[in-house]
Parts: sequence; C-alpha cells; structure tokens
Amino acid sequence: MTQAALYVGNRTFTVVDRPAVPPGPGEVRVVVAYTGICGTDLHVLHGAMDHRVSAPAVIGHEMSGRIAELGAGVTGWRVGDAVTVMPLAWCGDCPACRAGHQHVCHRLDFIGIDSPGAMQGSWTVPAGTLVALPEGLSLRHAALIEPTAVAVHDVRRSRLAAGERAVVIGAGPVGLLIAGVARTAGAHVLLVELDPHRRDVATRLGFTVVDPATTDPADAVDERTGGAGAAVVFEVSGSAGGIRTATGLLAVRGRLVVVGIHPTPREVDLHRVFWRELEIVGARVYQRVDFTEAVRLLAAGEVPAEDLITEVVPLRDVAGAFDALERGGVVKILIDCGGGR
Amino acid sequence: MTQAALYVGNRTFTVVDRPAVPPGPGEVRVVVAYTGICGTDLHVLHGAMDHRVSAPAVIGHEMSGRIAELGAGVTGWRVGDAVTVMPLAWCGDCPACRAGHQHVCHRLDFIGIDSPGAMQGSWTVPAGTLVALPEGLSLRHAALIEPTAVAVHDVRRSRLAAGERAVVIGAGPVGLLIAGVARTAGAHVLLVELDPHRRDVATRLGFTVVDPATTDPADAVDERTGGAGAAVVFEVSGSAGGIRTATGLLAVRGRLVVVGIHPTPREVDLHRVFWRELEIVGARVYQRVDFTEAVRLLAAGEVPAEDLITEVVPLRDVAGAFDALERGGVVKILIDCGGGR
Repeated sequence: MTQAALYVGNRTFTVVDRPAVPPGPGEVRVVVAYTGICGTDLHVLHGAMDHRVSAPAVIGHEMSGRIAELGAGVTGWRVGDAVTVMPLAWCGDCPACRAGHQHVCHRLDFIGIDSPGAMQGSWTVPAGTLVALPEGLSLRHAALIEPTAVAVHDVRRSRLAAGERAVVIGAGPVGLLIAGVARTAGAHVLLVELDPHRRDVATRLGFTVVDPATTDPADAVDERTGGAGAAVVFEVSGSAGGIRTATGLLAVRGRLVVVGIHPTPREVDLHRVFWRELEIVGARVYQRVDFTEAVRLLAAGEVPAEDLITEVVPLRDVAGAFDALERGGVVKILIDCGGGR
Repeated sequence: MTQAALYVGNRTFTVVDRPAVPPGPGEVRVVVAYTGICGTDLHVLHGAMDHRVSAPAVIGHEMSGRIAELGAGVTGWRVGDAVTVMPLAWCGDCPACRAGHQHVCHRLDFIGIDSPGAMQGSWTVPAGTLVALPEGLSLRHAALIEPTAVAVHDVRRSRLAAGERAVVIGAGPVGLLIAGVARTAGAHVLLVELDPHRRDVATRLGFTVVDPATTDPADAVDERTGGAGAAVVFEVSGSAGGIRTATGLLAVRGRLVVVGIHPTPREVDLHRVFWRELEIVGARVYQRVDFTEAVRLLAAGEVPAEDLITEVVPLRDVAGAFDALERGGVVKILIDCGGGR
C-alpha cells in the first residue's frame, strides 16, 4: 500500500492508502521522497485545469526519489538509484516531434497533469523519463530540479551572455530560479516584484529588487545601463502590466522571454518591437539538456536551493500546504512523501 | 536651378525651381533619375509625420541617379557614377550605435523624412550614404533598391531557410518584395491579401495568394504543411487582424517578423507564443549588407522589378502620382526627376 493525495474536485484533496501501481514493461516504480508544489498545481486545485485533470487524480511533477522496482525490459537502472523525473511524454509522430521539438509535442502528455503525478509515496513512470542524481545532491534539493530546468530553458532561449543586463519581472520560485541561473551565467540581474515578502527573499539571496509601485523599473534600468536598456527581460508574472513594463525596458535588439502564462491576449507595443528590433521569445518547459544542467547547478550549489524551500509538509497535510501557498508569503513548499527517510 | 517637389503641409505639394544645394565637405550632389513613392511618403502627405517633417520640405528616399559634383575631401567616387543612397545618418555615440546597431540609432536621421529627400532634380547627401550601381542595372530598376533592401533585411531577420514555408500578410510593394526575396532564398511562399488588384499582381508574379475573406489562411497553411504550420510569417499589413492571423499560422518555433507599422499596441496571443515557443521579431530599415544584396538581386533579375512599377510620372505631376497611390490599384509609382535621360 502507498499513501496518495487525490485531487477530487471542488477545491479538495483527500489522502488515501491504496496499492502501488506495479511497473509495466519499460516502466519503473519510484519511491517518492519529496514533491514540490507548483503554481500549476494550485491552478488544478482551483479547478482551472479540469479540462486536463480528471478527478480523482494524483498530481505533482517536481520530485525526487529512489527506484523501487524495474518493469520488464528496463536496463541501465538499479533498484535504489536516486532519480528525478522529466515529466514529459511525447507522441513522436506530430509535426513538432518530427521537427525535433518533442518537448512541445502537439499531443504532449505532461505527467502530473495529463496523467498521474508524484504526490504519492510510490509513482510508476516510463523509464525514459528518469534523470539520475549525483552523489552528494540531497533528495530535498533534488525536488527543485524540475523548476530549475524551467529556468535553465528560459535563460537558454534568451541567448543571455555574460556581462549582459537581465531583468526578471516576478520574483516567485521560477523568477528567483531564473535570476539565479542568469547570475551564474555572468549576467547582471535586476528583479521587479510587487510583493514585499518576495522582495525580502530576493534581497536575502543577494539580488537587487525593485518595487514597481515606488520605483519606475525603466528608470532603474536606464540608470544601470547608461540609457541603453536591458538585453533580456523575463516576464514571469503572467500579467498585462508585466508585458507592458517588459517591452519598455529592452535595449535595441533586446529579447523578451514569455515565461508566465497569459490566459488572454495581451496588448503589446509592437511599434517598439519594430523600432528597437526587439524579439519576443516563447519558452515552454525544458529539454533533456536543461535537466542535465539543472542537476549540475544544484549539485554544485550554484542555485540557492535551501533558501527557496520555505517549508516541508507531510503528505497527510497536503491540504494545509496548498492553503499556505494560497495565503502567500512563501516561496517553495515541499511535500514529504516518505521516500527520503 | 533644379526642380523640387515641396511638401507644404495641408495635404499639398508645390513644385518649384530653385538653386541646387552645393555639396559641402564630405558630401556629393547627385542628379536624381527616379524616386519611388513609399507608403511613408503618403503618411507625410496626410500630415501624420508632421512631428518629423518641417514643411516646406522635400521628401523621398527610394531613388537612383548619377553623381554630379563632389564636395571637398570626397574620394572613391567620380562624377557620372551611377548610385543609389542608403538614406540613414546615425550619431555614432548612442547605446545602439556603440552596440553596432547604427541602423536603429536612438537619434537616427532618416534622410528623406527627418532631412531633405530625393523628390527633386538634384540631391546633396553625405558621401558615406552612396551605394554604387553595377553596369547593366537600369536607373529605373535601381529606384527599387531601397525597398528591396527592406525586404532583404526582413528575410534575414527571420532566419528563413531554403525549403521552409513562409507566409506574407499584405501584398503591397514591400510584401511582394519580401515574397520575391524569400522565393529566391528557396522558401515556399504564400501571400495573404484582401485587395483583388494586389492579388492579381501577386498571381502574375507566380505567387500563390489567398483572399482571407473567402479562405481561412490557417486552413491553407495546414493543408500545405501537413498541419505543422509556417516556419515564418511576415506581417506587412500593419493591422490588428494581420497580427491575429499571423500567430495562428506559425509552426512550433516559428518566427513572426513585424514589418508593418502598428501605431497602437496590438492584442497578441502570448499563450500561443509560449505554447509553441514562437518568436516575434522586429525588423526596421536595413544595414549596408542588405543594400549590397538588394543591388545584386535586382542586377541579376531575381526580383521582378518591372512588374512592380505601375507607372512613371514626371516630377511636375507629383500631386497626381500621390492621388493615384491613394486611390489604390497600383503597386509602385516612380517619379521621373529628370536625371535618367
């Protein structure tokens, strides 16, 4: 038997004990140590993802654990190996897959949303999704690999170079991880964040952070760049105002990376896009190379994992963990699924 | 004395005879053969550029001619040389110039708008703006070099590769030139145009063109790409609808080049930009390499210059030429400024 948090609709989780799913051919069963709660998981709780999540459902896609059981035909892995999962399954046959962009497959199965996820003690996944963890990377920090891979992908899409000025709009977990990855890439980073708690965390991590309610980010950027503007802006807030701010901050030939989810079309200053020859670049999830780099950064301590973990909550208290996330004032909450002890 | 078309405000041109401007140090005086009328010139006539054009003013920036006189210190050129002009003067000192992007200088002087232009018999310009014409390229066709350089720049910004599918929204002169340049680059080109006359011209030039009032461009693109979408869309119409159509046509990792002028912010489907990892790329004017390539394409007959020239009108009839452009049903109208005879 394994414990599992079931999203049952109506803003409710129920924790149940049920049999673990035995691994089929090509699959492995992983005992889950820690699972992080992502903003998308909160959207699931709110019912906004009900078109993709069929309750009752186990969600969760940021995790760490150890292999407990190998299905038929799985090679290259051993029981006990410390792993994380790159939670993407693609069709291999659509135009995106055929063009080599499997991570944005037209029929992408995002494991943990479109199929069962990691908020349970035992998780059965295709062996091809596994990513090995190195000695010395704690399972606690390894639960941050997935969001760090998002940040690595975003920075890679931006073509950010050492010495360039980057601005991150929104200092939630992904914004802070982007800032961290950009800093290790040698960029000068400025964060823009309305929430005072998030500004405090960013400051504690050594970042310069601007409150747009009191300081015009354009003035802050002009001052630091001699009027040139920023080479890269990451829009992580998903807000109309964030997009408006972003285009106004960019230097000639600057790149705006669209990281946040914009559910409705946004007004964009295309005249400035033309006038300054800007680029607006979409960035979604990650590729294998981003996971590999995220593992390296976390293992080397180049991403401030411990400072991003506000709380670790036992699986039976999953509802309380979501409540805390909703109330705000936290960065990353991990669910202790039992496999890390 | 030289004839000049003066924009005097109030939607009016006056043709006058006046002394030619002698070339100062580093300048040359060019006898103008032909000057094309650009959409921007029409905006000037409508008063929409009065913040940049101080009437009375000579406008015009698409031209061909021969050197008539060299100012002090000008070397490398001879009287009688056939030339066109790359009508940009940059400050050399702003952040854009210092970053090597002089063509989008923060204080760019676009010659023919911000300073006197080519709708006159004799035009005095900095020698550094001259571009040499090869033997065998007629002065008539050479008047199309400037808009062709715009098209070359747009295609270069798109990173269009041979074999890729490109869609051009708007089949005016620049749209047709982009289509022509994309075709010579080995791309498969589809045009989208509401105006039946422009569709006829596009068809005559051998392009496939879709009327979006009767055919959904997305269906046309899906049919031709097996549901993948287009690698590149050039938005040349400057309309809100053009932008909406454009994002809907693009394949995963597709590039949307913003060529048309969007005077107000446009609603952009940023969710699709994220979902398909699209890029939106601004493209403004050109660099020297684009002029060089435009000269080569026109000299080699790879751009259908003659088919794009609807009419050649003497300078004294400049008002009638603008009237014809306003009425529509034309592609490119050239002003015969006298220096080609």
